[in-house]
Amino acid sequence: MEPAFENIQAKGATLPEQAAEQISKLIVEQHLTCEDKLPSEFELAEMLGVGRGTIREGVKLLVARNVLDIRRGKGTYIAPNPGEIPDPLGFFYYPDQFRLALDLAEIRLQMEPWVARVAAERATAEDLKKLREACCVVEQDIVAERDHSKNDVLFHVAIAECTHNLVVPKLIPIITYAITLFVSLTQSRLKAQTLVDHREILDTICDRDVERAGAAMERHIEYNRALLQEIVGRLGKDKGELPSSTD
Amino acid sequence: MEPAFENIQAKGATLPEQAAEQISKLIVEQHLTCEDKLPSEFELAEMLGVGRGTIREGVKLLVARNVLDIRRGKGTYIAPNPGEIPDPLGFFYYPDQFRLALDLAEIRLQMEPWVARVAAERATAEDLKKLREACCVVEQDIVAERDHSKNDVLFHVAIAECTHNLVVPKLIPIITYAITLFVSLTQSRLKAQTLVDHREILDTICDRDVERAGAAMERHIEYNRALLQEIVGRLGKDKGELPSSTD
Repeated sequence: MEPAFENIQAKGATLPEQAAEQISKLIVEQHLTCEDKLPSEFELAEMLGVGRGTIREGVKLLVARNVLDIRRGKGTYIAPNPGEIPDPLGFFYYPDQFRLALDLAEIRLQMEPWVARVAAERATAEDLKKLREACCVVEQDIVAERDHSKNDVLFHVAIAECTHNLVVPKLIPIITYAITLFVSLTQSRLKAQTLVDHREILDTICDRDVERAGAAMERHIEYNRALLQEIVGRLGKDKGELPSSTD
Repeated sequence: MEPAFENIQAKGATLPEQAAEQISKLIVEQHLTCEDKLPSEFELAEMLGVGRGTIREGVKLLVARNVLDIRRGKGTYIAPNPGEIPDPLGFFYYPDQFRLALDLAEIRLQMEPWVARVAAERATAEDLKKLREACCVVEQDIVAERDHSKNDVLFHVAIAECTHNLVVPKLIPIITYAITLFVSLTQSRLKAQTLVDHREILDTICDRDVERAGAAMERHIEYNRALLQEIVGRLGKDKGELPSSTD
C-alpha cells in the first residue's frame, strides 16, 4: 500500500489546517468509519512529520467540523456522518429570516412533490413501514400538543429515504430549516391541516400512486407557503426576522 | 437593549461549545457583518463569565466552522458568509463516489431546468451581464485547455443568482460537487458539448424564453448524466470510487 501521508510542508494554509487535510485524506483512503478509532496523536505526529501540538489543533478542527468524534473515556473516533454539520449553509446568520423562509418554501414546492413521486415509485416495504411510523410520531405530537416541528422534518426525511438517492435525505433538513420557526407562529389551523396532509401523502405513497403522491405533497407545501406568506404580511416584512420560538 | 449574553452554566455541551453558541447569538442579535471585529477575548470572557481559555477555544470552533475569520495582523472578524463551509454535507467522505455522482445528477436534472426557467423570468440586466461574463470565462478555459470545472460551477451559480432566491445559489455548489471529478474523466466530447450547451442556456435566458431555457438546461444535464453513466459502466461500479483528479 502507498503511504497515506505526504510530510507537511509550509503552504498557504496554517499547519493545523494542513494536518486536518492530511487526516481527512487518511480517513478516506483507509475507508475508516465510525467504528474506527483515529491513530494516536503520537502516531499521527510521526506520520505527518509535525509536532503533537499541531496534530492536536488539527484534530480540534475536524471535531469542530464533525469529521471526528471525541468519545469520553474511549478516545477519538471517526464521526457517524463525517463532515455533515447542522445548518451547513449558516441560515442562522441570515439577517432576513422571513425572506429566507419564503425562499425555502419556493424550493420545497419545486423539490418535494418530485421527491414524493420518486418515493411512491421506489419505496420498499421496509421504507413504508418506517414512513408509517414517522407519520404516527408527528400525529402523536400534535394530539399531545407537543412541538411537532422536529418530527415533522423527520417525516419529510423518511419520504426522502424512500427515493434511495444518497443526497435527497440530506437536502431535506436544509430546505425545511424554516419549519421550526414557522410552526411556532401558527396556531391549530396548521396542525389540523398537517394531520390531514401527512396522512394523504403517506397513503398515496403506500398505494404507489405516483401522481397523487406528488399532488398531495404539492398541496401540503403550497398550503404551508400561503400560510407563511399571510403571517409575513401580517407581522410586517420590514421587521426582518421571525420571532424566535422561545418568545 | 437587553443583554446579549446569559452567563454560561454547565449543560450537556462543553464550555467551549457553549461559548461558541453564545458568540453566535451575539453576532445575530447585534447584526454583526464581515465589516465587524469581534470583541476582544477579555471583553467576551467578562460578558460570558468564563475564562479567556474557554473563549479562545470557542473562537477556534467558530473559525473552524467559518463563522469567524482571523485576519493576520488585524484580529478576529465575522466571516463574509458566516457558517457556510465548503462541502457542507461531507461528500468527500462518501465511500461510493460513483453512486454519489449519479445521485447528484438525478437531483440536478430535477432542480436546474427549473432554476433556468425562473432565471429567464426574473433576471435583471445586471444579472444577464454577469451571466454572459461567467459563460465567457468557461469558454476561455476550454479553448485554452485549462480545467474548466471551477468556472463551470460558477456559471451554474450565476444562473441561480438570476432567480433572486437566497438559497438556490447556495445549493448549486452542493449538487454540482461531482463536476470536478467528472470533468477529469471525460475528454474533448464533453468540452465541445459544454460550449454549445452553455451558449444555448445563456441565449435562451437572455431572450427570457422560459420554456426553451428550461429545455436547454435539461438537455445539458441529461447529456452529462448519460456520459457519466457510460463512464461508470466502463470503469466498473464495483471499484466504488472515481479516480481522483490528480491521477
